Amino acid sequence: MLEHRSQIEVRYSETDMMGIVYHGSYLPWLEVGRTGLLAAYGLPYRDLEAAGFYLPVTEIQLRYLRPARYGDVITIRAAVREKPAVRLRVDYLVCRDSEVLAEGHTRHVFVDKPGRPRRPPPAFVELAEARFPGA
Amino acid sequence: MLEHRSQIEVRYSETDMMGIVYHGSYLPWLEVGRTGLLAAYGLPYRDLEAAGFYLPVTEIQLRYLRPARYGDVITIRAAVREKPAVRLRVDYLVCRDSEVLAEGHTRHVFVDKPGRPRRPPPAFVELAEARFPGA
Amino acid sequence: MLEHRSQIEVRYSETDMMGIVYHGSYLPWLEVGRTGLLAAYGLPYRDLEAAGFYLPVTEIQLRYLRPARYGDVITIRAAVREKPAVRLRVDYLVCRDSEVLAEGHTRHVFVDKPGRPRRPPPAFVELAEARFPGA
Amino acid sequence: MLEHRSQIEVRYSETDMMGIVYHGSYLPWLEVGRTGLLAAYGLPYRDLEAAGFYLPVTEIQLRYLRPARYGDVITIRAAVREKPAVRLRVDYLVCRDSEVLAEGHTRHVFVDKPGRPRRPPPAFVELAEARFPGA
Repeated sequence: MLEHRSQIEVRYSETDMMGIVYHGSYLPWLEVGRTGLLAAYGLPYRDLEAAGFYLPVTEIQLRYLRPARYGDVITIRAAVREKPAVRLRVDYLVCRDSEVLAEGHTRHVFVDKPGRPRRPPPAFVELAEARFPGA
Repeated sequence: MLEHRSQIEVRYSETDMMGIVYHGSYLPWLEVGRTGLLAAYGLPYRDLEAAGFYLPVTEIQLRYLRPARYGDVITIRAAVREKPAVRLRVDYLVCRDSEVLAEGHTRHVFVDKPGRPRRPPPAFVELAEARFPGA
Repeated sequence: MLEHRSQIEVRYSETDMMGIVYHGSYLPWLEVGRTGLLAAYGLPYRDLEAAGFYLPVTEIQLRYLRPARYGDVITIRAAVREKPAVRLRVDYLVCRDSEVLAEGHTRHVFVDKPGRPRRPPPAFVELAEARFPGA
Repeated sequence: MLEHRSQIEVRYSETDMMGIVYHGSYLPWLEVGRTGLLAAYGLPYRDLEAAGFYLPVTEIQLRYLRPARYGDVITIRAAVREKPAVRLRVDYLVCRDSEVLAEGHTRHVFVDKPGRPRRPPPAFVELAEARFPGA
């Protein structure tokens, strides 16, 4: 398993006229969580793209349990629970202190610049082997 | 069943450095589709809020099949297939001509200003009765 | 002079918790106005980029006079009043019916992919000559 | 004079297909800088709104000198150089290490919930008196 916690503070621009955070504003937060996780394991996403590996989102699923508000300090807990290969699933909890505000997952596929699926880079494969032995 | 088609043109601001539309940019499009559907049936969302009814998103699920690109003309097909009450599910197809670029759904609940679930407004209940008889 | 009017409808995602449109949401609207203007004169921005010409924003100035609200139909009036060359200035009025909600301008420079200033494409130069004779 | 430095890391969602940060993405950063400054002087913007004071943007001016890129660590330097009253001007430098990427200002006016200009709260007036004596 891979896991990581990232923290952000809610920006005014992320709210809407309902007085709470716009539901679409969570997607960049999940991304902060996801890229934080990759970086924590030595694979900054910026370097992946520089090496010709892209990880577009192929699915997003998110349930909203409680509203987030302007100024809240939000923790994004991202985890990889299944051994990744050309496909990758990341699970998330979006929390304010001990409260879970949202939970969901994203799915991704490694592709090359033109968008064709490709094997992940060796460093990623090694990490997957080390963290999910026998899987 | 309720259904409606809305059209938008992809803005530059909706793209990201992958050269395609950012996955989070689809959420405002679904909203355009959803509010277009409500308006087409005589229930502009602006009027709902003015009358004290709010419809926050409680779940989003979206699968991305093909990339959208800057300048594309996109059709959002929104449909309600299950009789709505205090809860509402909307299904979507995001299309470019005959190609489906993404498909998914959102779930909503009618709430009052402080966020407590409340019965939908009479006009909405009547519409649901008329369109989903016997359901 | 070059001028063009584009129209958009305010999206929920463009509002903030002040209950009005977020000030940053106007920038994509100016872009809609600017690219609408270029397209109206036979120079779709998508084609410019495909041909290796980029027009990044080098300055933005915008005064906000009255708030825009969710659901408003907004007209963006974009105009080029000075003969453009490698540099281009576009002026804007953001209107709701006869009310001016905001006014300002953007400045741009033609660059190549690596970001170096370059002469605009011949079709653009011809347009500038035709519309600003003797300038 | 009032001044403060805030730091953010560029998100993928803030880029566009030019491969750099979208020019509109800087506005939420200025806001991070501005609210960071207010908080540093004991006036969190969240508390101002809770007390019925709003600070909408009445003008934005920003010059873009060098592109920001995904993953960059950005420092926003916000400063108030003129004694504020019902009107407030904030100046900004957006920097990556010692490089200035953008510079500009925003103007604001204190208003009440319906949008009428109102005197700033006593704590703000005291701060202005203390920091701009004799002005």
